[in-house]
Amino acid sequence: MFVLLGGNGYVGTAFQKCLTGRGIPYISVSRSEVDYSDELTLRDWLGTTGATFLINTAGFTGRPNVDACELQKAHCLAGNAVLPGTIRTVCEELKLPWGHVSSGCIYTGEKADGTGFDEQDPPNFSFRQNNCSFYSGTKALGEEILAGAERCYVWRLRIPFDEYDSPRNYISKMMRYDCLLDARNSLSHLRHFVESCVACHTTEIEYGVYNLTNPGSVTTRDVVELIKRHKLTDRSFSFFESLEQFMEQAASAPRSNCVLDSQKAIAAGLPLLPIEESLEQAMSNWVPE
Amino acid sequence: MFVLLGGNGYVGTAFQKCLTGRGIPYISVSRSEVDYSDELTLRDWLGTTGATFLINTAGFTGRPNVDACELQKAHCLAGNAVLPGTIRTVCEELKLPWGHVSSGCIYTGEKADGTGFDEQDPPNFSFRQNNCSFYSGTKALGEEILAGAERCYVWRLRIPFDEYDSPRNYISKMMRYDCLLDARNSLSHLRHFVESCVACHTTEIEYGVYNLTNPGSVTTRDVVELIKRHKLTDRSFSFFESLEQFMEQAASAPRSNCVLDSQKAIAAGLPLLPIEESLEQAMSNWVPE
Repeated sequence: MFVLLGGNGYVGTAFQKCLTGRGIPYISVSRSEVDYSDELTLRDWLGTTGATFLINTAGFTGRPNVDACELQKAHCLAGNAVLPGTIRTVCEELKLPWGHVSSGCIYTGEKADGTGFDEQDPPNFSFRQNNCSFYSGTKALGEEILAGAERCYVWRLRIPFDEYDSPRNYISKMMRYDCLLDARNSLSHLRHFVESCVACHTTEIEYGVYNLTNPGSVTTRDVVELIKRHKLTDRSFSFFESLEQFMEQAASAPRSNCVLDSQKAIAAGLPLLPIEESLEQAMSNWVPE
Repeated sequence: MFVLLGGNGYVGTAFQKCLTGRGIPYISVSRSEVDYSDELTLRDWLGTTGATFLINTAGFTGRPNVDACELQKAHCLAGNAVLPGTIRTVCEELKLPWGHVSSGCIYTGEKADGTGFDEQDPPNFSFRQNNCSFYSGTKALGEEILAGAERCYVWRLRIPFDEYDSPRNYISKMMRYDCLLDARNSLSHLRHFVESCVACHTTEIEYGVYNLTNPGSVTTRDVVELIKRHKLTDRSFSFFESLEQFMEQAASAPRSNCVLDSQKAIAAGLPLLPIEESLEQAMSNWVPE
């Protein structure tokens, strides 16, 4: 029996779909149903579920965007850094394998040679670098708290997208923002991501940290060109002149734009198609909201 | 009615004594009695108390020392950074004035000219400097989360001592450790500290951050000389040769040693005697455990 924490969120819903599709029985709970932030509550409740694998998709992301985290720091810290530690404690006690949905946003930029950051590279967009949003800082602290955790996967998601138009979908965001920042990023096709996470357990991949982004990277302009080519919208697009202009006009907290190396995941056989192909797949099958 | 959170700890007990001595009615609770880490529980409970001022002495310090925090990161973060944010939210909603016991350990060293750090100086021993213990990192994050809080005092305590022999008393620690690290520090006479905190409210001092250390600083050797002069023990003392030797042999997490400037508190009329006089006072009235 799989247990999904935060299963009604954007990522949680994708997990539900994946598990249903594979015929894997699961229980999904939100924090209002079971207060999994409380160690005793989580332990007692897990004992009743017959859980064989736990997936934590719960976390605190700001609404409408990461800037909101600057105003809700305690909630952000509790959801992204303390909660993974609480789950770790309980899962280690119960000897229950589990996975945590982390984020690639704890990196910024790319390596000097243009390649992406791999799992050996320490986060470079974190409190410890003093260059990050509060959100990224808490996600990096969450990974620190999971360092050395037993029977634990840390899955780094980065800018999810798929074919379903939604306020959380990167492709939809690109179509809705008034003005875009051109930057190079690695991205995660959400279905590839959740399939990879589930495969970690079902195919007994080694525990540890995995960058679950589709191999490669794209610029915002690349994605806009694809959107136009697939005629997903007839609007025109405009871009900020610079990161400085974007920060002045549209953002308060620093943003992560980064390239990740997902070779470790690919070598483990996880189903992440190259980014160009993945974007084509999503746009060819586009389902308007 | 004063409300004391974490009132049974070392600092909380000193507050209780102070309030009793002044005839100020108060309610003291530990987290096992009222789970003040939960926003709704805290708000509902505070509503029943008739609280006019809240004092948060709760926090997570490692036992036997700060090194233990490296192994209990989630609890440390929850107690020192998330909890102050939770209390802030509730107190702002209830328009309740309050004070938070913070720590001077978010600084290291002294200014280039030999003076201490004042409240305008940003912490230099924190996650953002990437040089600190996990404990200091969480205390500094706690202060970040309180930045701009309404009707809120942030009181920085630093190495408490008084005349009562106890495992938490700095003078007692100096007498019990096998080997000492010579370093210069500002210290807080615990009774002066709690009297100053209470005076903030009773004499309507401006809200904000206050370094509540006794003016001046002393070295470990200074304190040992005083201990010998007052004949508190007949043991001999030995010192580590260097910070490096201390770190190798006696510590795992980096330690803060720092000088603070308490002029802001002194200018506000808070009862902090000079450090030499305060140490004399404690040792002259020494009460063995």
